[in-house]
Amino acid sequence: MSADPSYPQPFSPHDPDDPIFVYHRGGKLEVASRRPLDNRGDLSIAYTPGVAEVSRAIAADPGLADVYTSRGNTVAVVSDGTAVLGLGDIGPAAALPVMEGKALLFKHFADVDAVPVCLQTGSVDELTDAIARLAPTYGGINLEDISAPRCFELERRLQDRLDIPVFHDDQHGTAIVVLAALINAAKVVGRDMTSLRVVVSGAGAAGVAVTRILQRAGLLDVIVCDSQGVLEPGRSDLPDHKRRLAATTNPRHVVGGIKEALDDADVFVGVSGGSVPEAALAGMADDAIVFALANPDPEVHPELADRYAAVVATGRSDYPNQINNVLAFPGVFRGALDVRARRVSEGMKLAAAHAIADLLPDPVAHEIVPSVFDERVVPAVSEAVAAAARREGLARA
Amino acid sequence: MSADPSYPQPFSPHDPDDPIFVYHRGGKLEVASRRPLDNRGDLSIAYTPGVAEVSRAIAADPGLADVYTSRGNTVAVVSDGTAVLGLGDIGPAAALPVMEGKALLFKHFADVDAVPVCLQTGSVDELTDAIARLAPTYGGINLEDISAPRCFELERRLQDRLDIPVFHDDQHGTAIVVLAALINAAKVVGRDMTSLRVVVSGAGAAGVAVTRILQRAGLLDVIVCDSQGVLEPGRSDLPDHKRRLAATTNPRHVVGGIKEALDDADVFVGVSGGSVPEAALAGMADDAIVFALANPDPEVHPELADRYAAVVATGRSDYPNQINNVLAFPGVFRGALDVRARRVSEGMKLAAAHAIADLLPDPVAHEIVPSVFDERVVPAVSEAVAAAARREGLARA
Repeated sequence: MSADPSYPQPFSPHDPDDPIFVYHRGGKLEVASRRPLDNRGDLSIAYTPGVAEVSRAIAADPGLADVYTSRGNTVAVVSDGTAVLGLGDIGPAAALPVMEGKALLFKHFADVDAVPVCLQTGSVDELTDAIARLAPTYGGINLEDISAPRCFELERRLQDRLDIPVFHDDQHGTAIVVLAALINAAKVVGRDMTSLRVVVSGAGAAGVAVTRILQRAGLLDVIVCDSQGVLEPGRSDLPDHKRRLAATTNPRHVVGGIKEALDDADVFVGVSGGSVPEAALAGMADDAIVFALANPDPEVHPELADRYAAVVATGRSDYPNQINNVLAFPGVFRGALDVRARRVSEGMKLAAAHAIADLLPDPVAHEIVPSVFDERVVPAVSEAVAAAARREGLARA
Repeated sequence: MSADPSYPQPFSPHDPDDPIFVYHRGGKLEVASRRPLDNRGDLSIAYTPGVAEVSRAIAADPGLADVYTSRGNTVAVVSDGTAVLGLGDIGPAAALPVMEGKALLFKHFADVDAVPVCLQTGSVDELTDAIARLAPTYGGINLEDISAPRCFELERRLQDRLDIPVFHDDQHGTAIVVLAALINAAKVVGRDMTSLRVVVSGAGAAGVAVTRILQRAGLLDVIVCDSQGVLEPGRSDLPDHKRRLAATTNPRHVVGGIKEALDDADVFVGVSGGSVPEAALAGMADDAIVFALANPDPEVHPELADRYAAVVATGRSDYPNQINNVLAFPGVFRGALDVRARRVSEGMKLAAAHAIADLLPDPVAHEIVPSVFDERVVPAVSEAVAAAARREGLARA
């Protein structure tokens, strides 16, 4: 399969006639009415004076807002534009097309009404206050493209303060799909997943969440690397979130860089945007599994990885095994909204990963995850998430 | 014309089979895609990796967000639910159906994409910070149902901080339509508008803005009453915003209550929710004009007002001369967005009022304002607003 020409070059100037810009002209979203407004009668129901009845009913019983407004099906896609795709801190206005794209995916795949909310950035305190203040408008909050380590504290505080799902997709969407892919990759190579030696390259939002979900799924031998090498307690340069990772990973006390980490490892999960030298790949164990997820430029080119690994996946749509958050977030929110879940628990995330994996009962090396256009994905994920929420007592409907 | 049965009774319990609740079930709004998303090609343009090109272009030239995202056509309808319709401080969730209704009107009448933003209330400082932080997402901000006097300071601070239109509709929408109606009512009674003696009953958001726009339109003799009587500098019980009104109104130094104020007055504008005794009405000058705008219960029943006044208007759709903000806000925002106006100036509001009035070149007593369903209204208002913005150097497009 050849590379897709729509993958961007390192720099291309703004060309209004480029199909990408033509597609975006005027924006990708609009608001639509679910009800007629054809005459004075409709107007007096949709707005004053009739709407007062509905407001009065909700004031008396706040849960009715989920019945008589769009809130129960509406998710805010919230970003401050500090970590947008691979572009870094480009600000809230430049993040808007990404959040609109995400909203479009929410609607298309899961009939969730998602609206972009791009915020001027600030301290974690300020962002927490601003987002919590908005929360009465939404049934859920999808945090997106917010830089680490602020994203961890922000998500935690919002989860503590709000009783609606708050889900940082760069963390948990990625983690869910990586776990789903690893469940099936382990099947392909005939291994018990929990026995796999895994190296996660990248200790940002995705790296932290991938590591955590693999640990919860029972994997014991996970090593995390950042650009300076293996995270281990002896390193004095680690911020809090990396220190916490260092304390719970690397059970064999490996010291060094990515090459030392990959020596005899079974699985490489790249969520770093860096690159991996061929010599390091060559040191991996037989039947290696390589997930090189940086997008648009994977940490290892998939054609190179194929020489050393039994199973290769990337984030790209133009190679097999696309590990794409689109497999997770639409169904996760669909399921959470369907049962009015108070939050998205670890159990709900694990259930989502298994639901994705189980759609391919007999996975093969070039197909370990379903296509994002497989129409079974969202129903399977949403039902698994809703069922887990009910089991854990987190469902309100 | 008989009263519309859809006007609510003082209390009716929540009945899921009531047509109002049936209409609202599931909410009134949804998000729609303006673009196809049928295959991997669309996906790689709408979202990663293609969307990165658009983000990069906007990061380099922030104004492009108005070209390549929905922002330029999107207005936030922001409320903290502290002064919803006549219901008072019912909170953000209960305000949602009203804000959805407003959004539906924006779309229907002016093809503006409006989204509700219902905020947990707080101090003016807190609300200013939260709303200003959101502003990169929107082309304009419509403030709604926020209690006085906080609404004045909040609007002023947001206008100072942001370079997009910030428009408190309870103030300025009402003021624009009242002025439009008064222009034509003066024609009906054959009077120079500026010579009219006006009594404004109500010194909240609408009362303040109505008074200000009438003064800007050249009216010199305006008296404002609150529930305690005429605002005048001798009163010791006045908060700041009423003290400022007292200092610039009531040139004949009338003292007393609504009865004294209306004695020989030409115009009554009720925006208070109170009621006016028949004896006070009887004291008005010949050819009186009565705008009793409280909704759903006008300060004077229109059939009673007809006995004493030459022209009568209310806020209700089931009597002639409905003074309804819907005549103003869709066109005001349409015009402001069309030229990417930096704000909505006093000149733009006056232009909107004249545009509405001018649609009826030969007004008669029972038709001083066009119908809200008159399709000429939005184009006329938006063109007038856009032209005024250009004249004043406030247009960016």
